[in-house]
Amino acid sequence: MIKEESLEMEKVKVMEDVLGKNNIMAEELRKIYRNNGLQVLNLIGSPGEGKTTLLETTLRHLSGRILPGVIEGDILTGRDAARIKKLGRPVVQIETRGACHLDAKMIAKVLKDFDLQKLNLLLIENVGNLVCPASFDLGEDFKVVVISAVEGSDKPGKYPEIFNRAGVCVLNKVDLIGYTNFSREEFYEDIEHVNPQLKVFELSATNGTGVEKWVDWLEGLILNGSKKD
Amino acid sequence: MIKEESLEMEKVKVMEDVLGKNNIMAEELRKIYRNNGLQVLNLIGSPGEGKTTLLETTLRHLSGRILPGVIEGDILTGRDAARIKKLGRPVVQIETRGACHLDAKMIAKVLKDFDLQKLNLLLIENVGNLVCPASFDLGEDFKVVVISAVEGSDKPGKYPEIFNRAGVCVLNKVDLIGYTNFSREEFYEDIEHVNPQLKVFELSATNGTGVEKWVDWLEGLILNGSKKD
Repeated sequence: MIKEESLEMEKVKVMEDVLGKNNIMAEELRKIYRNNGLQVLNLIGSPGEGKTTLLETTLRHLSGRILPGVIEGDILTGRDAARIKKLGRPVVQIETRGACHLDAKMIAKVLKDFDLQKLNLLLIENVGNLVCPASFDLGEDFKVVVISAVEGSDKPGKYPEIFNRAGVCVLNKVDLIGYTNFSREEFYEDIEHVNPQLKVFELSATNGTGVEKWVDWLEGLILNGSKKD
Repeated sequence: MIKEESLEMEKVKVMEDVLGKNNIMAEELRKIYRNNGLQVLNLIGSPGEGKTTLLETTLRHLSGRILPGVIEGDILTGRDAARIKKLGRPVVQIETRGACHLDAKMIAKVLKDFDLQKLNLLLIENVGNLVCPASFDLGEDFKVVVISAVEGSDKPGKYPEIFNRAGVCVLNKVDLIGYTNFSREEFYEDIEHVNPQLKVFELSATNGTGVEKWVDWLEGLILNGSKKD
């Protein structure tokens, strides 16, 4: 057992090295995405706010010009990939076996399982965790923070890093908002404080409310940015 | 930048040292709890499944023989402690400023803010995260995994570590279960697989359904175990 202060310092140093290494690999991924005309979203949120259901709904609504592939990140089980597979799109499951986030190296490893030339959109569902995945760049164009109205309106203030780093927020499960004490006032005040530029889509992935706007935004992103258009 | 393999090894080594150090401190905490006749619960769950509301409801329902203190763990803000304070019980907020879990050292630091001789129950609400807090022993008698019915029934299979280490599970927000596709069959099958001994309380901290059983269990724990009885 090493001494406490040196342990703290060693922790910080290793973490810096880990993040530094990850950033280098993320740059490599960015080049691969660019070379293949891929737009990439990294979906981050707690367990159970509906990331997989959001992906299912999104896949169902996308027009034929959008060619999505999906990477599912979970600590254990291939359940989410099995759900996506039913929709007929290429999907790969990453099981982190304990790790609380995806990293760029894990993504690099599974990219070879896709025919990237046949895709123009890559949707990455991170491990269910509102904290740790925020720090790990996967080379994505946007981090999308997914939150559920049932989780409560105080989350941007309590978990500022992800709300700060995200370009887009999906506020999901608005169909249940009437059964909760969710305060839009508090939610948007918090967002104004941590990231006034954050683009928010309120929707219900389950009943479809608001999904059109989200899909329109996503399609615009790809059809304006993709080389396969 | 150090090489990848040695970075991985260093990461593992530092993590082992961090957990080893934490375990030693947790043993110290256990002694302090024992010497003061304290039962200690460590509440772990994702952001927004209702840990703070569960604590509020619990405090309201406890009989006068139970003398609880509360430690609130959050990355940022003192919002949760402010909510507990209104109920007139001693509470201390820990803001981890980025860290994704509480550790034993953080608890040791704030224990001096309580008059432990005047308590027989310490309720610790961990940072909202279903993954990382599972590994850090706070010297507690029980880890309580708090999950919401709205999060979905597939969580024990996907986040097995916390369900395996917990002694008790609170399945919260059962008042909303009818609006979700939560499957009790899947949920209890998963639990049977990861931790058949897990004691589950189904309740709604908001409308009070099932709270009595949870509080009865908690009171029994304290009144049978406490030296201040």
